[in-house]
Amino acid sequence: MFDFTIDATSGPARAGRLALPHGAVETPAFLPVGTQGTVRALSPRDLQAVGAELVLANTYHLHVRPGEEVVAKLGGLHRFMAWDRPLLTDSGGFQVFSLDGFREVREDGVEFQSHVDGGRRTLTPERAVEIQWTLGADIAMAFDHVAPGGADEATARDTLERTLRWLERCAKRHAELRRSGGQADENAMSDRPTARPPDRQTLWPILQGGAHLELRTEGLRRILELGSWTGLAIGGLSVGEPKQVMYDMLEALEPRLPGELPRYLMGVGFPADLVAAVERGVDLFDCVAPTRHGRNGSAFTPDGPVNIRNAEHREDPRPLDATCDCETCTTFSRGYLRHLFVAEELLGLRLLSLHNVRFLIRLAAEMRAAIRARDFPRWADAWRRRYTQTGSA
Amino acid sequence: MFDFTIDATSGPARAGRLALPHGAVETPAFLPVGTQGTVRALSPRDLQAVGAELVLANTYHLHVRPGEEVVAKLGGLHRFMAWDRPLLTDSGGFQVFSLDGFREVREDGVEFQSHVDGGRRTLTPERAVEIQWTLGADIAMAFDHVAPGGADEATARDTLERTLRWLERCAKRHAELRRSGGQADENAMSDRPTARPPDRQTLWPILQGGAHLELRTEGLRRILELGSWTGLAIGGLSVGEPKQVMYDMLEALEPRLPGELPRYLMGVGFPADLVAAVERGVDLFDCVAPTRHGRNGSAFTPDGPVNIRNAEHREDPRPLDATCDCETCTTFSRGYLRHLFVAEELLGLRLLSLHNVRFLIRLAAEMRAAIRARDFPRWADAWRRRYTQTGSA
Repeated sequence: MFDFTIDATSGPARAGRLALPHGAVETPAFLPVGTQGTVRALSPRDLQAVGAELVLANTYHLHVRPGEEVVAKLGGLHRFMAWDRPLLTDSGGFQVFSLDGFREVREDGVEFQSHVDGGRRTLTPERAVEIQWTLGADIAMAFDHVAPGGADEATARDTLERTLRWLERCAKRHAELRRSGGQADENAMSDRPTARPPDRQTLWPILQGGAHLELRTEGLRRILELGSWTGLAIGGLSVGEPKQVMYDMLEALEPRLPGELPRYLMGVGFPADLVAAVERGVDLFDCVAPTRHGRNGSAFTPDGPVNIRNAEHREDPRPLDATCDCETCTTFSRGYLRHLFVAEELLGLRLLSLHNVRFLIRLAAEMRAAIRARDFPRWADAWRRRYTQTGSA
Repeated sequence: MFDFTIDATSGPARAGRLALPHGAVETPAFLPVGTQGTVRALSPRDLQAVGAELVLANTYHLHVRPGEEVVAKLGGLHRFMAWDRPLLTDSGGFQVFSLDGFREVREDGVEFQSHVDGGRRTLTPERAVEIQWTLGADIAMAFDHVAPGGADEATARDTLERTLRWLERCAKRHAELRRSGGQADENAMSDRPTARPPDRQTLWPILQGGAHLELRTEGLRRILELGSWTGLAIGGLSVGEPKQVMYDMLEALEPRLPGELPRYLMGVGFPADLVAAVERGVDLFDCVAPTRHGRNGSAFTPDGPVNIRNAEHREDPRPLDATCDCETCTTFSRGYLRHLFVAEELLGLRLLSLHNVRFLIRLAAEMRAAIRARDFPRWADAWRRRYTQTGSA
């Protein structure tokens, strides 16, 4: 379980397959984000229809509402969301550091104010792991300290060191839970966690270090010394720094990354960023961009983004994206989609979210095909020429 | 075309089949309401999945936005909405009289203020028919003057007389359009209306007369004198009067209604009202209640309404309605649905709307089966006992 096999490469780009308890994931892959246990405006059937293989949910959000014990009583996260394919839970670190309002970082963990009821809560590395164990996703993420974008070296060093100390605590607690095969929480009444065999969940570390290559390199070395992992996440990028900084960091890191582990670039999901990151050896991505932009009326197309609210679409009988096979593009005209947005109809939010997620999943599939054809650099150049001809990343 | 055949009766209740250009409708039938050319939160695939056979759209709303000429350019209402089954358009009369803001009724028509841009517009009987012809639904409704609920006899008489004069004008214009087989509007650029054979749309009259039986009886007689219709709508009920007033009126009208025409009770859609009206010989219904209530977290069940936001559902693994075969009830727990509403997730609005529409469509199907078994009175009593045991209409 948790085997990652690479079946083709084209330059640093890799095509492969990640085996998880709830199924396999072809890589490169895009993970739709179901922050609160639902990918906004989409149903599990929609996700299946657009070809999603791995979906992300968020530990912080599910912890504050409805609470992991409620999810456990309702059969665990897979049953709760009615998604019987692979799931990954983010640790909540990023959310806690993104919250408005009170937040205090201590060595033990982070005290913060719930955005739901304003109450003070504390997340520690151990608690984050326990909550994720109770939720029961295939992949859990270590609790990390994310430095703000543009952090200086001292700040980035501080967050990296804390993230490494926390990773050790996460790994220790996760190993205990796996060994016991048991309950994360004595209060949990569901018998599901007890019944779960120890190979039902893996824990992935998150590499921090801001925009400082030497910190990233040191962090990577120390992560690899800390244990034998089944995957590796790159955090703290796409947090406001210029795109080129992210691309350069990925390029510099790539030869240093262990080839056999899947590489997960967190929070990245614009089409051009996916292509650039796959070119630099990344395998997995998640981002709210496709659904958030979809709800704003912005659609990804091979010719760049389209704002469906624009008056030019008023009487346009063409599909949003003539190359796309999704329900939105095979069923509705741009004119109708524009009408839905102008008339503030809920169906519009769903149809553009559906298309945007399908767009990224198809993009990942096209990249896999190009890598397997050993033709990725040429494909990427052609893709970029068309995409940026009219639009922007 | 537009044949209505009754294959079974059980007391005044009738089971039958209405043939329309885009397909057949089994009656009794509930019509989901797609006010702006979309049944709120549901896709055409959802409507197909819940067994909708006839969907309503609204002339006033589509006229003010996006405009019938835009719909025509996008291929007509069926193509616009991606619904290739039967459609009915309401005439806009009810909406114009329900609008806040300026409204002036003249003999010629109604001048009103658009709720979209505040601009003054006029709907006349001829325009309402032309717009509906351009939209291209299977059934168009005559432009009527709806009396407010509780109107005295003089007011109700006035609106009845105007509705009858307008009906004559509607019928005349509709006959012209059918004869010409042609364009409703010289400005319309689509060639679809021209290509449409004259039996593509029928026009139904609307019976007004408030809560005054003698006015309703006279109105009915005069409607039947005015032409040979393929269906008959009963308007101006369920507009605020006590339920019993509506039930009594339907009961008194029933023996006077021509048996061979389908009877469409406009704007009625609570489960108990459907049962009571079918008992009194009604065949068709439409209402926004299932979708509006669904968006508010209220679900129809055989045991009465359930408010999914209630804390009691927090950890409830059971389906919303254990008797239901819809996606919502076969996929998700009450606990998850409550979470979606509490967390203000869009999927919740859709899942409860979907269930509520399915509930009314199944209710209609159950009524058909009971009528065909010549067992409707017993079935209706049993249904009512269970429904009102815990809930309310």
